[in-house]
Amino acid sequence: MEILLEKDLICTQEWEKDDLDRLLELAFQMKQDRFGKKYLNILHRKQFFMFFYNPSVRTRQSFEAAATELGAHSQFLEPKSMRLKTSKSAGETVEDAAKVMERYAAGLGIRILEDKIGAYGEGDELLREYARWSRIPVISMAHDKFHPCQGLADLMGWIEWLASSGKLKTGRLAAKFDPGALKGKKLLLTWASGALCRSLCSAHEAALIASRYGMDVTIAHPEGYNLDPKVIGEVKMNCKSEGGNFEVVHDPDSGYEGAHVVYSRNWMSTEAYRDGELKKAEEVEKAFAIKGWTCNAERMAKTDNGIFTHPMPIDRGSEVTDEVASGPNSCIYDVAENRLHAQKAIMAATMGGFLD
Amino acid sequence: MEILLEKDLICTQEWEKDDLDRLLELAFQMKQDRFGKKYLNILHRKQFFMFFYNPSVRTRQSFEAAATELGAHSQFLEPKSMRLKTSKSAGETVEDAAKVMERYAAGLGIRILEDKIGAYGEGDELLREYARWSRIPVISMAHDKFHPCQGLADLMGWIEWLASSGKLKTGRLAAKFDPGALKGKKLLLTWASGALCRSLCSAHEAALIASRYGMDVTIAHPEGYNLDPKVIGEVKMNCKSEGGNFEVVHDPDSGYEGAHVVYSRNWMSTEAYRDGELKKAEEVEKAFAIKGWTCNAERMAKTDNGIFTHPMPIDRGSEVTDEVASGPNSCIYDVAENRLHAQKAIMAATMGGFLD
Amino acid sequence: MEILLEKDLICTQEWEKDDLDRLLELAFQMKQDRFGKKYLNILHRKQFFMFFYNPSVRTRQSFEAAATELGAHSQFLEPKSMRLKTSKSAGETVEDAAKVMERYAAGLGIRILEDKIGAYGEGDELLREYARWSRIPVISMAHDKFHPCQGLADLMGWIEWLASSGKLKTGRLAAKFDPGALKGKKLLLTWASGALCRSLCSAHEAALIASRYGMDVTIAHPEGYNLDPKVIGEVKMNCKSEGGNFEVVHDPDSGYEGAHVVYSRNWMSTEAYRDGELKKAEEVEKAFAIKGWTCNAERMAKTDNGIFTHPMPIDRGSEVTDEVASGPNSCIYDVAENRLHAQKAIMAATMGGFLD
Repeated sequence: MEILLEKDLICTQEWEKDDLDRLLELAFQMKQDRFGKKYLNILHRKQFFMFFYNPSVRTRQSFEAAATELGAHSQFLEPKSMRLKTSKSAGETVEDAAKVMERYAAGLGIRILEDKIGAYGEGDELLREYARWSRIPVISMAHDKFHPCQGLADLMGWIEWLASSGKLKTGRLAAKFDPGALKGKKLLLTWASGALCRSLCSAHEAALIASRYGMDVTIAHPEGYNLDPKVIGEVKMNCKSEGGNFEVVHDPDSGYEGAHVVYSRNWMSTEAYRDGELKKAEEVEKAFAIKGWTCNAERMAKTDNGIFTHPMPIDRGSEVTDEVASGPNSCIYDVAENRLHAQKAIMAATMGGFLD
Repeated sequence: MEILLEKDLICTQEWEKDDLDRLLELAFQMKQDRFGKKYLNILHRKQFFMFFYNPSVRTRQSFEAAATELGAHSQFLEPKSMRLKTSKSAGETVEDAAKVMERYAAGLGIRILEDKIGAYGEGDELLREYARWSRIPVISMAHDKFHPCQGLADLMGWIEWLASSGKLKTGRLAAKFDPGALKGKKLLLTWASGALCRSLCSAHEAALIASRYGMDVTIAHPEGYNLDPKVIGEVKMNCKSEGGNFEVVHDPDSGYEGAHVVYSRNWMSTEAYRDGELKKAEEVEKAFAIKGWTCNAERMAKTDNGIFTHPMPIDRGSEVTDEVASGPNSCIYDVAENRLHAQKAIMAATMGGFLD
Repeated sequence: MEILLEKDLICTQEWEKDDLDRLLELAFQMKQDRFGKKYLNILHRKQFFMFFYNPSVRTRQSFEAAATELGAHSQFLEPKSMRLKTSKSAGETVEDAAKVMERYAAGLGIRILEDKIGAYGEGDELLREYARWSRIPVISMAHDKFHPCQGLADLMGWIEWLASSGKLKTGRLAAKFDPGALKGKKLLLTWASGALCRSLCSAHEAALIASRYGMDVTIAHPEGYNLDPKVIGEVKMNCKSEGGNFEVVHDPDSGYEGAHVVYSRNWMSTEAYRDGELKKAEEVEKAFAIKGWTCNAERMAKTDNGIFTHPMPIDRGSEVTDEVASGPNSCIYDVAENRLHAQKAIMAATMGGFLD
């Protein structure tokens, strides 16, 4: 391996731009040469622990595949049966758990979202506590604040679709990493209603990484659905330093104008956590009461031949119409595939050689 | 690999006879040379997804071992925590799930039985929907209608026991695949009472593959326990084209006469699903009210030195006596072992090279 | 492999001393050369079944890592969804399950503790029943009576800390196995209160292996918390033949005098199982009513610069103070790491080559 970054990945914003560039270049290379000999044994016989406080489909499937393809073994661990300490349960201290895990494994992934925490930010604190006690890298597999693997996969997909040299025979896109490919392109990140009462992490990460790579960012949401002001501050700062525009609008239509990438997604309101718990039923009711935010073909027609992106699973009918989600400009399956390649690159870059 | 069939395996009946022959020949070779170098890396670093709508002992153990022995990694996935759509629950569409899975994995196994469906045939529909949306092979790991892996393992065991050249030191049987070995031999497939209210899949598959390979087939069951008429039609057709006899009897004794293979197994009645659900308690009560169908030594004495076969787990005392199940003519453990070899051959033949 | 012991490991006491010596020597070598080429493929493409009747953190993590590092695959199996027979549930017979498993796997680990049994000794019986029916090795991953993997890891850690030539850069200790290193050193094994109502297995195994390797053994516990008299008899016998002292005291202080290793741990009382079940709530209440048994710095000051050892997870505050558990003489993380190395040696020695 040329690169060995050996650090945690809790949010892409915390990595140097240069390190992100190298990571993305590696991810693109790994996609082009998926079972190439040079990658097959980077983590040979190593262990990757996956802590799923929340279940997942894609995250588990893609991380387990990523570990396998690098020669490692991933352990699917459900902390509910492990008596580990969280804000909501007593048990073994994170210090003790982390200091043992670093003896067995090359890395630790953690997923903690929505109802597994009692207040926004607790998941992030938990990840940072593991990172503090453990010398092995801690990777966010999605938590209440950030979702770096998704952000990287998004960016890869947008680059492929906006700058692609064409489709490979298996349906995967061939593209080289060009850090300037998205410069000046417009991302619309728009709220939508839905039954899943989702954490803010994917939206945060998309806005952060898009602005980091020079995109104009428009965020659209109804009143009461603000993203984290601290994160928005960082997005603005990114836009300023990269020369991108930034705006927030509170109507479901205007943001589509001239967009190159449309990201339509439900997220919970700023009132979602109260009294130490997620008020899920109230949130869902409140979200469904807000009509007219679904991404549809009429709205997409206002874009600059924009592509539709989504981290999946899609709440079809609420977040987006079938026509758009399954349409010719939908990059959702390529983005999903990129989770695998991004995660392979992350694992290789942070865990490769650690135990050797 | 000489063969690469690259198709789904939902029922052996849907495969060409020639393809089945090649598959079985490979399975026998793999058994003789279990850790032979030529098989160890057929699916090197590939991913096999196992969807267990229903739990299992042998199926999971044998598929995970099969994947390992070919160099692949199997993911044990329980759809109950994955919010996937079935007839009984809302969630992510099969289209979306399948189109992402084909990006990560070389193949997908699905097991769905008994109480996980609301009507006979729904499991089969689900498998075919996954197969429709996904370019990777879909393999039945037992569903409401068919159980191709069991059928192939059964056939291997019967050939070994009826045509074997002897036992290897580890207790495994040495035999070459001879497609004509079972020609003219008689299979008795008989119902028995039991507490497990089993799906028809194993019985269907046994009757189909036995008749396909030229066996005479006698099916014995009480009134109300008919197998699927469409499947029976195919069994009759197989018998006709291969020159075997076919009959259905409704008494527990007559079928044993001259049998070479006795397959005693509980299955649910034709009234098992009503109002969109399995009436399990009623079924068990009804089955136990029918006395006198247990396979025992007295009955086995009427056979032509017949062997006892069963896909396990055995409901001892109801389906068969201990004397027969653990007796010298019981091939149950060899058949169980053959699940591994048959599945390795299936995976190699359908998934080998797909992602290369 | 130079050694191939091919036997079950249910308790270290049942192995010849010479075999234990060879096992420990291999474990130390494997620790020094963790990813060394000569160990990476000992169980290449083989299967190790892990039956977790009780969940676990460290045991699972370390066994899965151990299997990986030897080239094998471990299957995480929860018997609760497998309908296997125990003293508390009906289901498939152990005979049938075991006779199939030996066809798929190179070894079988079983963990069964506390509330998964109805009387002390039932877990041990279950392991021995699997061992009786199956030709593959059965390894205890902790059961009601013994915990051989923990005992071996303990011994390794004590040797490292009492005879170590220093720390490696990664924090792991460098040491060679010297069977005489602990001769004449004193182990204090002391009861403590706690909320976890633990089985006796770790305490039993520690006393057995310490006495086997020539240590003086002092056991301290309140009235009613006797260990198994049969095990104590074996410990006494070991002490006699190795020249060590043995004593039992019933106060929380006197045993610390001159100790080299202090092992403070909760265990259940002799009245814990009644009417076929574990009276857990009563046990916890009874344990908490006994004050003043916590291992603390004041007590440790009476030792001969003694080290603190514990199999983890630690019930901090009840079993030991933070000051001692996280102090400079705590060997807990090194002992935890040794689980991995000990288990790799066990698997290599018992399963290596079995299926070849």
